Amino acid sequence: MLLKVTVLPKNGVLDPQGKAIQQALGSLGFDAVQDVRAGKVIMLDIAETDATRARAAAEDMARKLLANTVIESFTVEIP
Amino acid sequence: MLLKVTVLPKNGVLDPQGKAIQQALGSLGFDAVQDVRAGKVIMLDIAETDATRARAAAEDMARKLLANTVIESFTVEIP
Repeated sequence: MLLKVTVLPKNGVLDPQGKAIQQALGSLGFDAVQDVRAGKVIMLDIAETDATRARAAAEDMARKLLANTVIESFTVEIP
Repeated sequence: MLLKVTVLPKNGVLDPQGKAIQQALGSLGFDAVQDVRAGKVIMLDIAETDATRARAAAEDMARKLLANTVIESFTVEIP
Protein backbone atom coordinates (compact mmCIF):
# COMPACT_ATOMS: atom_id res chain seq x y z
CA MET A 1 0.00 0.00 0.00
CA LEU A 2 1.27 3.42 -1.00
CA LEU A 3 1.25 6.20 1.59
CA LYS A 4 2.27 9.82 1.37
CA VAL A 5 3.85 11.49 4.39
CA THR A 6 4.07 15.29 4.19
CA VAL A 7 6.38 17.07 6.65
CA LEU A 8 6.21 20.86 7.03
CA PRO A 9 7.73 23.31 9.51
CA LYS A 10 5.23 24.25 12.25
CA ASN A 11 3.66 27.69 12.19
CA GLY A 12 5.93 30.13 13.98
CA VAL A 13 9.09 28.17 13.21
CA LEU A 14 11.54 30.05 10.98
CA ASP A 15 11.75 28.55 7.50
CA PRO A 16 14.91 29.85 5.80
CA GLN A 17 14.46 27.48 2.83
CA GLY A 18 10.97 28.82 2.22
CA LYS A 19 12.21 32.41 2.46
CA ALA A 20 15.01 31.67 -0.02
CA ILE A 21 12.49 30.18 -2.49
CA GLN A 22 10.24 33.22 -2.04
CA GLN A 23 13.13 35.59 -2.82
CA ALA A 24 14.18 33.54 -5.84
CA LEU A 25 10.58 33.55 -7.15
CA GLY A 26 10.46 37.33 -6.63
CA SER A 27 13.64 37.82 -8.63
CA LEU A 28 12.10 35.72 -11.43
CA GLY A 29 9.16 38.16 -11.54
CA PHE A 30 6.63 36.21 -9.46
CA ASP A 31 5.69 39.16 -7.24
CA ALA A 32 2.30 37.84 -6.13
CA VAL A 33 3.85 35.23 -3.82
CA GLN A 34 3.04 36.25 -0.25
CA ASP A 35 4.46 33.33 1.66
CA VAL A 36 6.36 30.10 1.00
CA ARG A 37 6.81 27.12 3.32
CA ALA A 38 9.18 24.36 2.23
CA GLY A 39 8.95 20.81 3.48
CA LYS A 40 9.46 17.18 2.57
CA VAL A 41 7.27 14.53 1.07
CA ILE A 42 8.02 10.83 1.54
CA MET A 43 6.17 8.19 -0.49
CA LEU A 44 6.17 4.89 1.38
CA ASP A 45 5.27 1.55 -0.16
CA ILE A 46 4.37 -0.69 2.77
CA ALA A 47 3.63 -4.42 2.56
CA GLU A 48 0.30 -4.08 4.37
CA THR A 49 -3.17 -4.31 2.83
CA ASP A 50 -5.15 -2.96 5.80
CA ALA A 51 -5.42 0.84 5.43
CA THR A 52 -5.78 1.53 9.16
CA ARG A 53 -2.70 -0.49 10.06
CA ALA A 54 -0.68 0.96 7.17
CA ARG A 55 -1.58 4.48 8.29
CA ALA A 56 -0.67 3.70 11.91
CA ALA A 57 2.71 2.31 10.78
CA ALA A 58 3.41 5.39 8.65
CA GLU A 59 2.54 7.69 11.58
CA ASP A 60 4.90 5.70 13.78
CA MET A 61 7.68 6.06 11.16
CA ALA A 62 7.02 9.79 10.89
CA ARG A 63 7.27 10.26 14.66
CA LYS A 64 10.41 8.14 15.00
CA LEU A 65 12.39 9.15 11.89
CA LEU A 66 10.78 11.22 9.16
CA ALA A 67 9.73 14.31 11.11
CA ASN A 68 11.28 16.28 13.95
CA THR A 69 8.06 16.82 15.88
CA VAL A 70 9.59 19.66 17.92
CA ILE A 71 9.67 21.93 14.88
CA GLU A 72 7.79 19.99 12.19
CA SER A 73 4.24 18.69 11.77
CA PHE A 74 3.31 15.80 9.51
CA THR A 75 0.27 14.39 7.76
CA VAL A 76 -0.26 10.88 6.39
CA GLU A 77 -2.49 10.40 3.33
CA ILE A 78 -3.40 7.44 1.17
CA PRO A 79 -3.10 8.95 -2.33
CA MET B 1 -4.79 31.43 -2.33
CA LEU B 2 -2.82 28.53 -0.89
CA LEU B 3 -1.32 25.98 -3.29
CA LYS B 4 0.68 22.84 -2.65
CA VAL B 5 3.42 21.89 -5.11
CA THR B 6 4.76 18.34 -4.70
CA VAL B 7 8.05 17.48 -6.41
CA LEU B 8 9.17 13.83 -6.66
CA PRO B 9 11.96 12.10 -8.56
CA LYS B 10 10.68 10.54 -11.79
CA ASN B 11 10.31 6.79 -12.01
CA GLY B 12 13.59 5.24 -13.06
CA VAL B 13 15.67 8.06 -11.58
CA LEU B 14 17.93 6.94 -8.74
CA ASP B 15 16.77 8.29 -5.38
CA PRO B 16 19.62 7.96 -2.85
CA GLN B 17 17.73 9.94 -0.20
CA GLY B 18 14.78 7.56 -0.46
CA LYS B 19 17.10 4.55 -0.22
CA ALA B 20 18.80 6.03 2.87
CA ILE B 21 15.41 6.55 4.53
CA GLN B 22 14.40 2.98 3.65
CA GLN B 23 17.58 1.60 5.25
CA ALA B 24 17.12 3.76 8.34
CA LEU B 25 13.51 2.57 8.68
CA GLY B 26 14.70 -1.03 8.29
CA SER B 27 17.26 -0.59 11.07
CA LEU B 28 14.48 0.80 13.30
CA GLY B 29 12.52 -2.43 12.76
CA PHE B 30 10.13 -1.29 10.03
CA ASP B 31 10.74 -4.28 7.78
CA ALA B 32 7.51 -4.03 5.77
CA VAL B 33 8.71 -0.98 3.83
CA GLN B 34 9.19 -2.07 0.21
CA ASP B 35 10.08 1.24 -1.40
CA VAL B 36 10.66 4.87 -0.41
CA ARG B 37 10.73 7.95 -2.67
CA ALA B 38 11.77 11.24 -1.11
CA GLY B 39 10.76 14.61 -2.54
CA LYS B 40 9.87 18.17 -1.67
CA VAL B 41 6.65 19.93 -0.89
CA ILE B 42 6.30 23.69 -1.30
CA MET B 43 3.27 25.55 0.07
CA LEU B 44 2.72 28.76 -1.88
CA ASP B 45 0.47 31.59 -0.74
CA ILE B 46 -0.31 33.55 -3.90
CA ALA B 47 -2.20 36.87 -4.03
CA GLU B 48 -4.67 35.57 -6.62
CA THR B 49 -8.31 34.65 -6.05
CA ASP B 50 -8.93 32.87 -9.36
CA ALA B 51 -8.10 29.18 -8.91
CA THR B 52 -7.27 28.55 -12.58
CA ARG B 53 -4.83 31.45 -12.76
CA ALA B 54 -3.28 30.61 -9.38
CA ARG B 55 -2.73 27.02 -10.55
CA ALA B 56 -1.20 28.20 -13.84
CA ALA B 57 1.15 30.53 -11.94
CA ALA B 58 2.22 27.73 -9.58
CA GLU B 59 2.88 25.40 -12.53
CA ASP B 60 5.00 28.11 -14.13
CA MET B 61 6.98 28.52 -10.89
CA ALA B 62 7.46 24.77 -10.64
CA ARG B 63 8.81 24.55 -14.20
CA LYS B 64 11.11 27.56 -13.79
CA LEU B 65 12.43 27.08 -10.27
CA LEU B 66 10.89 24.51 -7.95
CA ALA B 67 11.40 21.33 -9.98
CA ASN B 68 14.16 20.07 -12.23
CA THR B 69 11.87 18.61 -14.90
CA VAL B 70 14.68 16.49 -16.36
CA ILE B 71 14.68 14.23 -13.31
CA GLU B 72 11.67 15.36 -11.26
CA SER B 73 7.91 15.48 -11.83
CA PHE B 74 5.59 17.84 -10.00
CA THR B 75 1.90 18.16 -9.15
CA VAL B 76 -0.01 21.27 -8.10
CA GLU B 77 -2.98 20.92 -5.74
CA ILE B 78 -5.30 23.35 -4.00
CA PRO B 79 -5.44 21.86 -0.50
